Amino acid sequence: MNIIRIDDPADPRVAPYLDIRERDLVGREGRFVAEGKVVLNVLFCAGRFEAESVLVLENRLAGMVETLGLAPDTMPVYIASGTVMDAISGFHMHRGILAIGRKGMAASVDEVLAALPERALVAVPVGISNHDNIGSIFRNAAAFGADAVLLDQTCCDPLYRKAIRVSVGAALKVPFAVGGTAGELADALTRHGFEQLALSPAGKADIRDIRRPKRLALYLGTEGEGLPEPLLKRLTTARIRMAPGFDSLNVAAASAIALHHFTEASD
Amino acid sequence: MNIIRIDDPADPRVAPYLDIRERDLVGREGRFVAEGKVVLNVLFCAGRFEAESVLVLENRLAGMVETLGLAPDTMPVYIASGTVMDAISGFHMHRGILAIGRKGMAASVDEVLAALPERALVAVPVGISNHDNIGSIFRNAAAFGADAVLLDQTCCDPLYRKAIRVSVGAALKVPFAVGGTAGELADALTRHGFEQLALSPAGKADIRDIRRPKRLALYLGTEGEGLPEPLLKRLTTARIRMAPGFDSLNVAAASAIALHHFTEASD
Repeated sequence: MNIIRIDDPADPRVAPYLDIRERDLVGREGRFVAEGKVVLNVLFCAGRFEAESVLVLENRLAGMVETLGLAPDTMPVYIASGTVMDAISGFHMHRGILAIGRKGMAASVDEVLAALPERALVAVPVGISNHDNIGSIFRNAAAFGADAVLLDQTCCDPLYRKAIRVSVGAALKVPFAVGGTAGELADALTRHGFEQLALSPAGKADIRDIRRPKRLALYLGTEGEGLPEPLLKRLTTARIRMAPGFDSLNVAAASAIALHHFTEASD
Repeated sequence: MNIIRIDDPADPRVAPYLDIRERDLVGREGRFVAEGKVVLNVLFCAGRFEAESVLVLENRLAGMVETLGLAPDTMPVYIASGTVMDAISGFHMHRGILAIGRKGMAASVDEVLAALPERALVAVPVGISNHDNIGSIFRNAAAFGADAVLLDQTCCDPLYRKAIRVSVGAALKVPFAVGGTAGELADALTRHGFEQLALSPAGKADIRDIRRPKRLALYLGTEGEGLPEPLLKRLTTARIRMAPGFDSLNVAAASAIALHHFTEASD
């Protein structure tokens, strides 16, 4: 391991870790921040993104050796005391480990679709601007074996720090692409032979009655406005059955129910 | 409506609204805080808890008339300017409406169980100490028609401000009781003729293969440690099928899938 001790919070080698929270708002020039052992495990195992470096609390290093062994030997592992680490990141880092990754070249929607197997399940969040919800949708996509996530242009960034954390790393594992409008995503999915299902409280069929086709795209809209009307007119619609008088479901919960229904994972 | 204008943030009539966030940590002597129009609708419609008063932004009053019409005429409706309201609550109140409710006498586990219908579904969170998760479990319980929630003594308070908000008011609607240990809850549920199912990644049956009995209690454990081993030994266990390599599901998502599976709500 390429372990480097950092004693000065102003050391230029740890500049990407400065003021983690404030810089969430202004972007990071092609980089993302991953936090915690479980997320770093996914980052290194999935290998979809390059890890530029890791910053770890000195007294946590021993517990991280196995995780860090999954990363390339040459990757710098910066270690620091709690005081120095907090001074760098700008808040108390109780998780004790951070990584900076590179976003790299974003794949296009067509590239992601072209790389999918013959049988494929794709989640399509539309207008989801809340990082908790995007993170949870990725987590559920990974848990139930979705092959990709396609986001319309109004969704938030799944590589935002909080979205990665909530996804428990799934945002670093499940292939995704950001498209244009939902209509343009539907055009692309049609070209690639996908049947397309829009989840909506006003959906025609009960999702439990829908069988999984070979290639399925599942659209998820916002809680308030739902999916855009033109999209609902164009696609097959399905609803999740609820109790009368409390017709209110979080989109992440809806994605869990629908993706679980369609999962073909073996036990 | 009993509308009372407040110009002085130190007015003793709005004392329960002072420093909302700080007082989350120290408790409120039998009171809870409900935020937002949707949650207040549930508070007034469900009628399980008494609303002591409401504090609303003056320029939001017109949009709240229908909601406030659901409350007793005598309930004080305090109105204030944005500046005064922020000075009272201690943070920027973009939702524009708050209510103080009274927790009242807590029902016992046996009382809640005795009041249930012949066919009943009960959610039993064990060790869930995160308010987001408790709120989401209540929301899903309401959405899928669970008749009650029983919490073991190590769960957090569902009437904590954030839990109520995340539940979209379901914590004010679905009857609940806080028990002793999970084992004591299981004893009570047995006495009341419930079949009991523990959700666990190591569960024996796939939840999709389990039919709903007349009276069912569904146990939900924490993400890390899961349900206590003695409980798993004692109860029937079921798992939610997941994809290989990413065996990680949030407890709220798990509750959505399991409760949806057992819901008997009509369309």
